[in-house]
Amino acid sequence: MRPSGRRPDQLRPVTITRQFSKYAEGSVLVSFGDTRVICTASVDERVPGFKRGSGSGWVTAEYGMLPRATHTRNQREAANGRQGGRTLEIQRLIGRALRAVVDLSALGERTITLDCDVIQADGGTRTAAITGAYVALVDAVASLRKRRAITRDPIHGAVAAVSVGIFAGQTVLDLDYAEDSTAETDMNLVINDAGAFVEIQGTAEGHAFRAEELAQLIALGQQGVAELIALQRAALAG
Amino acid sequence: MRPSGRRPDQLRPVTITRQFSKYAEGSVLVSFGDTRVICTASVDERVPGFKRGSGSGWVTAEYGMLPRATHTRNQREAANGRQGGRTLEIQRLIGRALRAVVDLSALGERTITLDCDVIQADGGTRTAAITGAYVALVDAVASLRKRRAITRDPIHGAVAAVSVGIFAGQTVLDLDYAEDSTAETDMNLVINDAGAFVEIQGTAEGHAFRAEELAQLIALGQQGVAELIALQRAALAG
Amino acid sequence: MRPSGRRPDQLRPVTITRQFSKYAEGSVLVSFGDTRVICTASVDERVPGFKRGSGSGWVTAEYGMLPRATHTRNQREAANGRQGGRTLEIQRLIGRALRAVVDLSALGERTITLDCDVIQADGGTRTAAITGAYVALVDAVASLRKRRAITRDPIHGAVAAVSVGIFAGQTVLDLDYAEDSTAETDMNLVINDAGAFVEIQGTAEGHAFRAEELAQLIALGQQGVAELIALQRAALAG
Amino acid sequence: MRPSGRRPDQLRPVTITRQFSKYAEGSVLVSFGDTRVICTASVDERVPGFKRGSGSGWVTAEYGMLPRATHTRNQREAANGRQGGRTLEIQRLIGRALRAVVDLSALGERTITLDCDVIQADGGTRTAAITGAYVALVDAVASLRKRRAITRDPIHGAVAAVSVGIFAGQTVLDLDYAEDSTAETDMNLVINDAGAFVEIQGTAEGHAFRAEELAQLIALGQQGVAELIALQRAALAG
Amino acid sequence: MRPSGRRPDQLRPVTITRQFSKYAEGSVLVSFGDTRVICTASVDERVPGFKRGSGSGWVTAEYGMLPRATHTRNQREAANGRQGGRTLEIQRLIGRALRAVVDLSALGERTITLDCDVIQADGGTRTAAITGAYVALVDAVASLRKRRAITRDPIHGAVAAVSVGIFAGQTVLDLDYAEDSTAETDMNLVINDAGAFVEIQGTAEGHAFRAEELAQLIALGQQGVAELIALQRAALAG
Amino acid sequence: MRPSGRRPDQLRPVTITRQFSKYAEGSVLVSFGDTRVICTASVDERVPGFKRGSGSGWVTAEYGMLPRATHTRNQREAANGRQGGRTLEIQRLIGRALRAVVDLSALGERTITLDCDVIQADGGTRTAAITGAYVALVDAVASLRKRRAITRDPIHGAVAAVSVGIFAGQTVLDLDYAEDSTAETDMNLVINDAGAFVEIQGTAEGHAFRAEELAQLIALGQQGVAELIALQRAALAG
Repeated sequence: MRPSGRRPDQLRPVTITRQFSKYAEGSVLVSFGDTRVICTASVDERVPGFKRGSGSGWVTAEYGMLPRATHTRNQREAANGRQGGRTLEIQRLIGRALRAVVDLSALGERTITLDCDVIQADGGTRTAAITGAYVALVDAVASLRKRRAITRDPIHGAVAAVSVGIFAGQTVLDLDYAEDSTAETDMNLVINDAGAFVEIQGTAEGHAFRAEELAQLIALGQQGVAELIALQRAALAG
Repeated sequence: MRPSGRRPDQLRPVTITRQFSKYAEGSVLVSFGDTRVICTASVDERVPGFKRGSGSGWVTAEYGMLPRATHTRNQREAANGRQGGRTLEIQRLIGRALRAVVDLSALGERTITLDCDVIQADGGTRTAAITGAYVALVDAVASLRKRRAITRDPIHGAVAAVSVGIFAGQTVLDLDYAEDSTAETDMNLVINDAGAFVEIQGTAEGHAFRAEELAQLIALGQQGVAELIALQRAALAG
Repeated sequence: MRPSGRRPDQLRPVTITRQFSKYAEGSVLVSFGDTRVICTASVDERVPGFKRGSGSGWVTAEYGMLPRATHTRNQREAANGRQGGRTLEIQRLIGRALRAVVDLSALGERTITLDCDVIQADGGTRTAAITGAYVALVDAVASLRKRRAITRDPIHGAVAAVSVGIFAGQTVLDLDYAEDSTAETDMNLVINDAGAFVEIQGTAEGHAFRAEELAQLIALGQQGVAELIALQRAALAG
Repeated sequence: MRPSGRRPDQLRPVTITRQFSKYAEGSVLVSFGDTRVICTASVDERVPGFKRGSGSGWVTAEYGMLPRATHTRNQREAANGRQGGRTLEIQRLIGRALRAVVDLSALGERTITLDCDVIQADGGTRTAAITGAYVALVDAVASLRKRRAITRDPIHGAVAAVSVGIFAGQTVLDLDYAEDSTAETDMNLVINDAGAFVEIQGTAEGHAFRAEELAQLIALGQQGVAELIALQRAALAG
Repeated sequence: MRPSGRRPDQLRPVTITRQFSKYAEGSVLVSFGDTRVICTASVDERVPGFKRGSGSGWVTAEYGMLPRATHTRNQREAANGRQGGRTLEIQRLIGRALRAVVDLSALGERTITLDCDVIQADGGTRTAAITGAYVALVDAVASLRKRRAITRDPIHGAVAAVSVGIFAGQTVLDLDYAEDSTAETDMNLVINDAGAFVEIQGTAEGHAFRAEELAQLIALGQQGVAELIALQRAALAG
Repeated sequence: MRPSGRRPDQLRPVTITRQFSKYAEGSVLVSFGDTRVICTASVDERVPGFKRGSGSGWVTAEYGMLPRATHTRNQREAANGRQGGRTLEIQRLIGRALRAVVDLSALGERTITLDCDVIQADGGTRTAAITGAYVALVDAVASLRKRRAITRDPIHGAVAAVSVGIFAGQTVLDLDYAEDSTAETDMNLVINDAGAFVEIQGTAEGHAFRAEELAQLIALGQQGVAELIALQRAALAG
């Protein structure tokens, strides 16, 4: 029995609110249950040094969490003077996930930065961030097309992410904090709209997982992402 | 004529939403027009070194802004590795403002940290932050009283803040970004419920202001804060 | 009765020594009683990025304090690896104060940096710094005119600063440390030679101050700055 | 055809040299082909704050690379003043991998730090590091048992790591730099001596990978790690 | 011919002013010609971690330079966020030099910090700093004896420092900036009142120096330090 | 009697292994007894700002030590976020020593960086680093000549370094850690193939040393460096 009463293969209620803030080219508030993340996509007409003069663009991400997004207050990273290893790891993951569906040369020599800021955390912040950031990215690209800055659509597919894990001996989808903090195994899957894998990151917190458990987790994740991609489509159609 | 069509002495629509997030002892979303700030109050049963063993508590504040809270994206301070001078200045101001209405010895040897995170900025972020943080602080203190951690109420009055300035030759209340960015003079006033001044910070961006202009600005601010304190009371009664 | 035996409206002995060091374009040792600050003005033929190509210049300030400028030794900010919030706040204030009397376009595309280093602190370091830095700035500009780097005088007025406060229930001028550390209210006023306000920063340390107290403080500050500007003139004429 | 002429399922020549340096409790030079990593295990009789008083120990890892371990010189992280995201990510991975085979309570309240320093990099530095660090850890634990600091063996199994990927359309084992830099998919697998998964991290650099490709990669990794664990055993028996 | 017209073995005019600032236990303004350094000695009743519980004290030094102490403005180290290599090297040298004449156990478990801040630099700042810091240290120790915090005198000798070098083919004493910047060889000598060497640091900027040149430089330095120690004595007797 | 049983004027066994790693233009593993340092020379076709447009090149050095190169583990400087004073001091010394034998204008506008990384430390790491780095530098320059990037040989002599000291009342050559940690005096000498001094750095840890002791130390160092330069030649001829 899951703490939330959900079925093993059941996502939390997911909402995707576009145009959440008024300045960004793309701005989304995404919630996976009590996990809430503001995802904004900002267009900058410059590129980092390693792309300069290439004619090709860049997509990158930054991740942050408000100090009291969690049960107890965490120190503010800006006050600490450095981003922690977990933050860097997550923002690198988000960036790779989004670049997997973007044709950087069609983007032209500009950068889109996805800022994913967690305002409330209840497990799965990185998967919510990827899922919401994709929608913000689509909106930002649409704004570029609208002002005719680009002609070809650089986005060639959809991408979303979900966590799966083994909780109390059972494979479950979209773990919340109560599950995540005691799960034996925790895996984050980034999957595209063709059901293929962009990223897979699994960690055995307790006992190591066997190949057949891995297969079950993967199948569960594919189902979950398919539902999330349908929700992204619905939000973008809205 | 003000860009927003407001009268010179008119505040923007102000909303104060309590219990905005589920973990913090006090949590408020405050908006002054399009300026939106999440203010959370976190209780920690420790105090900084200079208060240890004193029997007395501490109230402090931290301020941040999401990178795309403004027209163009700002660099994330955590990524820069340091908080900017403006950030430090504002969070010191918020801390002083709130401490002005708290009896630290009645608080006991614990710290309340007010995190003020701007999710959308349209001028007046520091005044909105102070106004909202006061409500979050009251809620956090109430939670302490509820669990009988303190017996006396450490809060001895209300405090709110508003900006005033000279825009297009006229003294105006609660400047938005369109006004603020071109104002000749900009002043932030922190005033208590007795109409007395806790903090006054005025800067002549254009021409220096004369003593009679100063008097007008101050009177305007007193009126604005009186309205804000009434809104705080209504929110707390809600 | 003031600890120093001064009348409420009496400044400390003020000295302004020009050509204090031999390299800087402008170099002043200013003392307000036992507070001593070295103010140097350095001309650099470059401007910060946001001014590049504008044809217009920049005036900025940096503030520091020797570790043992005070009763007990403070940690050296360079060793700490960061300037504290108080330092950043003060140097931003000094920069704004000086820019208020400079026509940046007449300065041409160059930067004048005012370094204000406190070698002994007895209250009022920021007001002494502004008062001395103005004289160093005038000398640096004179050196530019002398070598015909500029044709128009970019300085259009004088500026000085003084603190006022409520000590032992009485409004007093130019607080020393003994007063400052126990004052109920402390205000720094930056005022120009027309008696108009460039900056006003007041903080109620103890009880909040009423509008009539504010008016008295302001009048006292205007008188004090008028005396300081006369002393600046005398020094520059010397 | 692989650039090195290896069969798809063939590891590079692997060597594991123990007692590489004279001070550390465990010290190993591991090479996977031209990738060479010094792994040292240092015992410290203290634990980090979150373990203090728990009676239980900690195992952690740090990763570094000499500036010219690669084709072109990288900036020294110590000179940069911060460890990069890739470094933090790898050292977190190494720490989790090793903790998966350690009973921290049997270790007692002490820390073992695994320093993995790459002196030459030709792909697979993190998998070589994990494989070598395990041997250094076993030696460090043996030194604790020898001096009777612990009574129970805290190590409950072996762990090693290998990379797998899709290169030129084919699944291959243990990618070198020539393969890694052009691979479409790259996966690092940390597997224990029971063939179960401790960590799986896969990234599609080019096209996303399908479920059946994933299954092949996993099987290849299991075979490779089984060989590596045999090599660890041989080294420890030597 | 030396640029200053001095004889090869002639020091610049040296002044040592005690009680330069009013707070420090020892405070000296030392000048070697146009090089001026404020040296203060601060007593702290704590010791660094490696001395705690030892019954023995510590003497350490910090070095700084005002940004415009030199011909062109240097960046402020506090603003840079780090002390440069030159600064660290000099302050380590000053600390070692002073500890050479202090019996740390007679000092008791307290720290004396020597802050050497250069307000004007014309060559030889580190030698002036050591020479002045010794006098400040003696004054600080005297204040400890006066308040009977220590019974035995921890200072067992005098120490001073001077630079020597080869300028225009000739060995010269106490180089000023004009000489130092073009000298072929530059050496700093820290010597005690018995004429023995505490520290010798020589660098060939141009051609490497021969053993006989070295002998001449050393003899010149011994003579110069003997004069400086006489000046220290005179200042302390004053 | 020396702890190692060596004669007072006897070097430790010295080995110089070229082509230690496969990427760097010059790469040497040098050992002085149990002290082992990897020295690599990397050529970069850019120069630092102060050399840009000069037509002349630059030679610089960086120094590091693996955390467990010593008896107890030191904190990793990259994790600390700063290089310590000792590290900066040593790398500045190595850079100066090597530049003393290079004609920077013959090098052309490019930089050679010497990375000296200590993998095992038993005293004399800086002298081993200089001695090995010279060989790596020669190899890197040879690679430039081979690809005809330069025509004139920029290296005009050889340089090596050794430590000397007073241990148990006797002057000894090439101190190991057992001697170094208890020596009364410690001196590092950088000497060229003409027997002339490039750098001399001596510190009295215990009693100050007299002029005649200094003369003995210097003679001993000259003899030791002569042997080291012969070993460099043999290695380069190999």
